[in-house]
Amino acid sequence: MNMSLDIDSVLQKLKEILPGEKEFIGLHEPCFGGNEWAYVKECLDTGWVSSAGKYVEKFESMLAEYTGAQKAVAVVNGTAALHICLKLAGVDCGDEVIIPSLTFVATANAVMYCGAVPHFADVEESTLGLDPSKLADYLKEIAEKRDGICHNRLTGRAIKAVVPMHTFGHPVDLEPLLEVCRQFGLELVEDAAESLGSFYKGRHTGTFGRLSAISFNGNKTITTGGGGIILTNDEELAKKAKHMTTTAKVPHRWAFNHDMVGYNYRMPNLNAALGCAQMEQLPDFLRKKRDLAQKYQALFTGIHGVQVFREPAFAVSNYWLNALIIDEEFVAQRDELLEATNAVGIQTRPVWTLMHRLPMYHQCPRMNLSVSEKLEQRIINVPSSVIMCELK
Amino acid sequence: MNMSLDIDSVLQKLKEILPGEKEFIGLHEPCFGGNEWAYVKECLDTGWVSSAGKYVEKFESMLAEYTGAQKAVAVVNGTAALHICLKLAGVDCGDEVIIPSLTFVATANAVMYCGAVPHFADVEESTLGLDPSKLADYLKEIAEKRDGICHNRLTGRAIKAVVPMHTFGHPVDLEPLLEVCRQFGLELVEDAAESLGSFYKGRHTGTFGRLSAISFNGNKTITTGGGGIILTNDEELAKKAKHMTTTAKVPHRWAFNHDMVGYNYRMPNLNAALGCAQMEQLPDFLRKKRDLAQKYQALFTGIHGVQVFREPAFAVSNYWLNALIIDEEFVAQRDELLEATNAVGIQTRPVWTLMHRLPMYHQCPRMNLSVSEKLEQRIINVPSSVIMCELK
Repeated sequence: MNMSLDIDSVLQKLKEILPGEKEFIGLHEPCFGGNEWAYVKECLDTGWVSSAGKYVEKFESMLAEYTGAQKAVAVVNGTAALHICLKLAGVDCGDEVIIPSLTFVATANAVMYCGAVPHFADVEESTLGLDPSKLADYLKEIAEKRDGICHNRLTGRAIKAVVPMHTFGHPVDLEPLLEVCRQFGLELVEDAAESLGSFYKGRHTGTFGRLSAISFNGNKTITTGGGGIILTNDEELAKKAKHMTTTAKVPHRWAFNHDMVGYNYRMPNLNAALGCAQMEQLPDFLRKKRDLAQKYQALFTGIHGVQVFREPAFAVSNYWLNALIIDEEFVAQRDELLEATNAVGIQTRPVWTLMHRLPMYHQCPRMNLSVSEKLEQRIINVPSSVIMCELK
Repeated sequence: MNMSLDIDSVLQKLKEILPGEKEFIGLHEPCFGGNEWAYVKECLDTGWVSSAGKYVEKFESMLAEYTGAQKAVAVVNGTAALHICLKLAGVDCGDEVIIPSLTFVATANAVMYCGAVPHFADVEESTLGLDPSKLADYLKEIAEKRDGICHNRLTGRAIKAVVPMHTFGHPVDLEPLLEVCRQFGLELVEDAAESLGSFYKGRHTGTFGRLSAISFNGNKTITTGGGGIILTNDEELAKKAKHMTTTAKVPHRWAFNHDMVGYNYRMPNLNAALGCAQMEQLPDFLRKKRDLAQKYQALFTGIHGVQVFREPAFAVSNYWLNALIIDEEFVAQRDELLEATNAVGIQTRPVWTLMHRLPMYHQCPRMNLSVSEKLEQRIINVPSSVIMCELK
């Protein structure tokens, strides 16, 4: 029985999988191997780089077609997408929104932009995402439906929505979560920022909630430089999303009228052009990312004290970001492993600090977060770029 | 004495100045005649398109150097820039902010994003921007300083800032406005969205207020696709602006900690690359735009009932968007002129609908807005692209 994690062995395994000639291996670097130049150059040649141009619509169509969502509305980034999703799901000033504490800060920030309060829920170890049964038990205890609206009996505030986040691309267990939402009169909004190319029981993530948000930041499976998209199966909501994200201007040949407080959230055509070229390569990217994940899994099979996280049985994950899960007894060595890997140019990082620990969210309501708190100490993300498959 | 505006003559003059071979002449089309492709291609070749890369810093340096501001922080668009400027100027939930009613809707929206209330002030005909003496008289009437903070005696709310907007690029009369702000304890934040390349008494607009916002939307003097920048002479505020616009992440080798509610407002490197190439051409663009403005002025000298707006005596304007000002007795013909020009592919438009007429701002506090209301009927913007100089 090992008394400690063998850091040298882990480092050795990582080196085996990584392209040796590179001095620095980032967590997730983009891959531009298709029509990126051609499409971007066309924007420059025609002058269409900004609010008008064909690539925004084309990118939206490609995303709708690929995910199976009825409609897709391209925006400036994933945070903006989630902000608009929440507003369209009816989240108002003073409401509460259930989100995981284990998430990137954008999930909580988007709630704050609506003037609402994040309410933190725990995740399950098998998905790294919201735990439906723990949430159901918790809501039975603290929530009640009054006039069809879910209320937090402790704070008196309305709870309007549940926002699962598909951590590192791995789908949350959506069906039981949808059932909890139905039971308590809550809207499901998916934070699918990380899960482009991830499927739950054969259906693309981001098509289960009333609305969902995907990110195309530079570190995502595909990138538009900065960008995001809103998915929905509700055509009316999609129209409203487009309207709200384009300053709520009322169409007219020349008059500038706006009928509500809108946002300047549209994706520029230049960025959409990049996105179209990236989308063409998505199946190839996903295949390579799956290969890489399998290599990690095979290599680490014999290493005591560390598991490579695998997609849940009901899911096909995009394996956006691979994660090592350290056994509980070895968490004291997490920082040592982070030091050792980063010191040799292999970028690794722990999971995000849990939301309820951040100063601005420390006073927000939360359930018992024991699983999240344990996982926070155990997760280490490892390099997961598409280009790693190509360099070997 | 003419009893009506001679629409045919106006149309004829516009045709004289416009490149005849083009079927459609837009109000403001971008010009990519420099290193745009080289810089953008470098982003694609190196993979640096998103949150990291050298062009964001380079673009910020170029803007600081050109404008003379101490610091510049590049963001995703002008609206986002103004939002952060207002927050950093101390605008909080429930405060009031004085803005012109004659402006693009983003000025008012940015105030709303802070949870504050826009308070509409009138403009003067000579600048199309805030009227300092009318504002001073109004504040004497409705405002009082209590504990160093300006309060609206009618609403009880604090008035925190004054946001002049340099309409079509023409500088507001800044010195007397700064004096009003000093007198009443108000922060000056410049909405310089349209005024890159415009100078007030030899100093660049956007360097007079505590903070200011410039836009690089596709229709602006230079473009980054979508983009904006925050200017300030206060190094501490610049640091905070960078922090707030990059999710307020606390720097660390691997840990994700955030110390306040931040925003995902950074400008992607891809867009900054475009901006660097555009900035290199700015002096040339400005020269061409000034030539075009002079042509408009010369051509319309003999036309009864229409003036071409000229920069105020204290200013050198970028002439971002040229404007015809119809004499008051002929305002009934404004729409006829808009019809006639747009019908032949010469894009024209009236000024924005005044903010206090929009449904979401109708109930906001306002002073007498008689000058704005008259100007609203009289302004018609005409094509002003740099490329118009090149096509002739």
